[in-house]
Amino acid sequence: MADKTIPYKIYLSEEDMPKAWYNLRADMKNKPAPLLNPGTGKPLTAEELSPIFCEELVAQELDDTTPFIEIPEEIRSFYKMFRPSPLVRAYCLEEKLGTPAKIYYKFEGNNTSGSHKLNSAIAQAYYAKKQGLKGVTTETGAGQWGTALSMACSYFGLDCKVYMVKVSYEQKPFRREVMRTYGASVVPSPSETTEIGRKILAEFPGTTGSLGCAISEAVEVATKNPGYRYVLGSVLNQVLLHQSVIGLETKTALDKYGIKPDIIIGCAGGGSNLGGLIAPFMGEKLRGEADYRIIAVEPASCPSFTRGTFAYDFCDTGMICPLAKMYTLGSSFIPSANHAGGLRFHGMSSTLSQLYHDGYMEATSVEQTSVFEAAEMFARVEGILPAPESSHAIRAAIDEALKCKESGEEKTIVFGLTGTGYFDLVAYQKFNDGEMSDYIPTDEEIAASVAKLPKVPEN
Amino acid sequence: MADKTIPYKIYLSEEDMPKAWYNLRADMKNKPAPLLNPGTGKPLTAEELSPIFCEELVAQELDDTTPFIEIPEEIRSFYKMFRPSPLVRAYCLEEKLGTPAKIYYKFEGNNTSGSHKLNSAIAQAYYAKKQGLKGVTTETGAGQWGTALSMACSYFGLDCKVYMVKVSYEQKPFRREVMRTYGASVVPSPSETTEIGRKILAEFPGTTGSLGCAISEAVEVATKNPGYRYVLGSVLNQVLLHQSVIGLETKTALDKYGIKPDIIIGCAGGGSNLGGLIAPFMGEKLRGEADYRIIAVEPASCPSFTRGTFAYDFCDTGMICPLAKMYTLGSSFIPSANHAGGLRFHGMSSTLSQLYHDGYMEATSVEQTSVFEAAEMFARVEGILPAPESSHAIRAAIDEALKCKESGEEKTIVFGLTGTGYFDLVAYQKFNDGEMSDYIPTDEEIAASVAKLPKVPEN
Repeated sequence: MADKTIPYKIYLSEEDMPKAWYNLRADMKNKPAPLLNPGTGKPLTAEELSPIFCEELVAQELDDTTPFIEIPEEIRSFYKMFRPSPLVRAYCLEEKLGTPAKIYYKFEGNNTSGSHKLNSAIAQAYYAKKQGLKGVTTETGAGQWGTALSMACSYFGLDCKVYMVKVSYEQKPFRREVMRTYGASVVPSPSETTEIGRKILAEFPGTTGSLGCAISEAVEVATKNPGYRYVLGSVLNQVLLHQSVIGLETKTALDKYGIKPDIIIGCAGGGSNLGGLIAPFMGEKLRGEADYRIIAVEPASCPSFTRGTFAYDFCDTGMICPLAKMYTLGSSFIPSANHAGGLRFHGMSSTLSQLYHDGYMEATSVEQTSVFEAAEMFARVEGILPAPESSHAIRAAIDEALKCKESGEEKTIVFGLTGTGYFDLVAYQKFNDGEMSDYIPTDEEIAASVAKLPKVPEN
Repeated sequence: MADKTIPYKIYLSEEDMPKAWYNLRADMKNKPAPLLNPGTGKPLTAEELSPIFCEELVAQELDDTTPFIEIPEEIRSFYKMFRPSPLVRAYCLEEKLGTPAKIYYKFEGNNTSGSHKLNSAIAQAYYAKKQGLKGVTTETGAGQWGTALSMACSYFGLDCKVYMVKVSYEQKPFRREVMRTYGASVVPSPSETTEIGRKILAEFPGTTGSLGCAISEAVEVATKNPGYRYVLGSVLNQVLLHQSVIGLETKTALDKYGIKPDIIIGCAGGGSNLGGLIAPFMGEKLRGEADYRIIAVEPASCPSFTRGTFAYDFCDTGMICPLAKMYTLGSSFIPSANHAGGLRFHGMSSTLSQLYHDGYMEATSVEQTSVFEAAEMFARVEGILPAPESSHAIRAAIDEALKCKESGEEKTIVFGLTGTGYFDLVAYQKFNDGEMSDYIPTDEEIAASVAKLPKVPEN
């Protein structure tokens, strides 16, 4: 086995935790394009956004010049309950692969939400509390984000209303119960509690719901009830900002041992984890201080970076949200059943989309069965049962490590392990039973939904 | 909030991890009574035990004089994947309770088995591998032990056959899938694969199984198949020995900050967690070097310490295992439905039983609903969804902290948080729905099963 002067797990001390988030946009020459009002085609103002989002979060959303934004003391206190998260040297995986590569992963799953989502949930809940709000609303599909937000709201004594896609509400009762244990009210969507929910139920009585519909309901409730705002767990600039703690801790830990990564890998759905993990490294790259290969990994069934179009599109399938410029498959694109619920989004964060467009990062897509093969190998040798989303990054990291084995290069690979798969055992069961299928959308399917992209001035 | 010179989480460095397990029995004046052969009533010899257990484990089981037993390098390597586990200062819980007490918990749930069981599973798998065995067999109820053993066997390339109580196999498919992902074969018990299974199925065609029956099947397969041995996750001396890593790490972490606990609290089913947590502290107490209040917490529905009898009894309900002297409710005692599956055992480790009998520790019992109230409060303020078993210790720790609030005493309380409740959401759902019930067995019920204790010379 390798020389183990580097510990298995690098834990920072609490004093080494970041005191400010890093705002990647400040170092971008080509800024991400602004959100547009779908009615007027004009950039949304703080005034237009503040009935939906908390004031301070609107400011963070629109700020593309301040490089560091202080993390309030209350949020740092909460972070200490589950952070710093470990940066793990994957000695056992390296040995299993027989690779000369050095593999590290930043593990964000050691908290009850089971993922990195808590990093932004607690920030968003804090600003809601600070503004004197009563509560927040959101949607959840697989449930990680809803769980994280429930935990955050419980901590600050905020009311939390989660619209959970009906099919998940019924098929994932355990996630629902975690949210309820944290005091959230969880409503299956579409529901009779909103105008849009009632309308959809009247039109499609048997529908099992969709994320787009759940978003619409959550936004309606937030805007119609005084003292409520809507919060979102990915895609937005503010979310990437909060998630920069992942990358900042990773960089501090690597620096502590004088390690310089060659390749940084993250899975990408809406971009919250990837954007957070790469933030300080991308910053160095943008400022010309260092160079890294940065790889986004997406499912072959929902390949927004690798097969999408860089254009303005709706963030939701219901087409009620602002327009964002991003790599998109079209908001009407319906990904095939893929167990990585967190990666089934038709678009991608505007910030990451711009960076990809400008050549600062690569993207690759991987198929589901090979993702679960990687997940199983990882679970067996590293002792952590990974979330399907995270396993996309594992797959790509293993593939890069195997290339090193062929070439004999001792590259240093860092990847983001965003969470655990304890609530994804239905997917593992399918894999264990040999019943998992891969589906790759045809060019025609993608062209059909891209053809429906909204017409806006910039398009 | 309190002065925070102590970090939220005390992590030891890998060099600070124990290099030897501590064998508490070496410091006991009154040794735990030996296991007896139920046929002859005589103490079991190494020769009699070795067809069932691995040789080195038999030696550990019988050794009550060696105080420290080296942890092999291979096991220490594996420990580094999930250890050292954090000792957490429960600042948020203290604040919520408004207590002057200082509360710490040793958290063993940050690994995929979700509990402390992995500490002994990896040791038992290691010795099986070292002996050149092909594999091991075991039983599992709730599934923590089976999961831990599957992970350990996968690491060492051993075959792992788990007999899972049929009702759990059907109602807890997710635990089963974790085990399968780690390559274990999981058989619902009773099964057609064993003689005793076929016999039971013929006699009781509709049975949903029991732990006693699963033990019988696992033992039969181990003894009939060359190259296999049976392993067990609690009760035995060897298991308490391996679990001493919990207490050793806890003591090192406390010593590092000059903290001396007043009260040490652990939940108690078979005693593996409690015995491990208290080991070095009890050692000091036995040697007269320090004094601590040590409290075992058991469910009111299965109160072996507080309402049981100190006598020789079978370890299993099937009455095929050796006789152990312990606090017992009688091996025919059937605890009412209690969601803390790991605490539904009629007896208690012989070592802990002797210590309790000799007045070195206290015991208390708590009711299920109050346990879940404590669990919910803990989850909300400390951010970890605890296992129902662990929550018994939380309940008792909260009660002690509230006594400090009344008296104004600044006591230091340490408790064991053995695991997470991610696979116990059915129980949480019952609690959330207000459908949880408490049941305390009557004196007559306990007397009836105690009356059936086996007749042995020492009785």
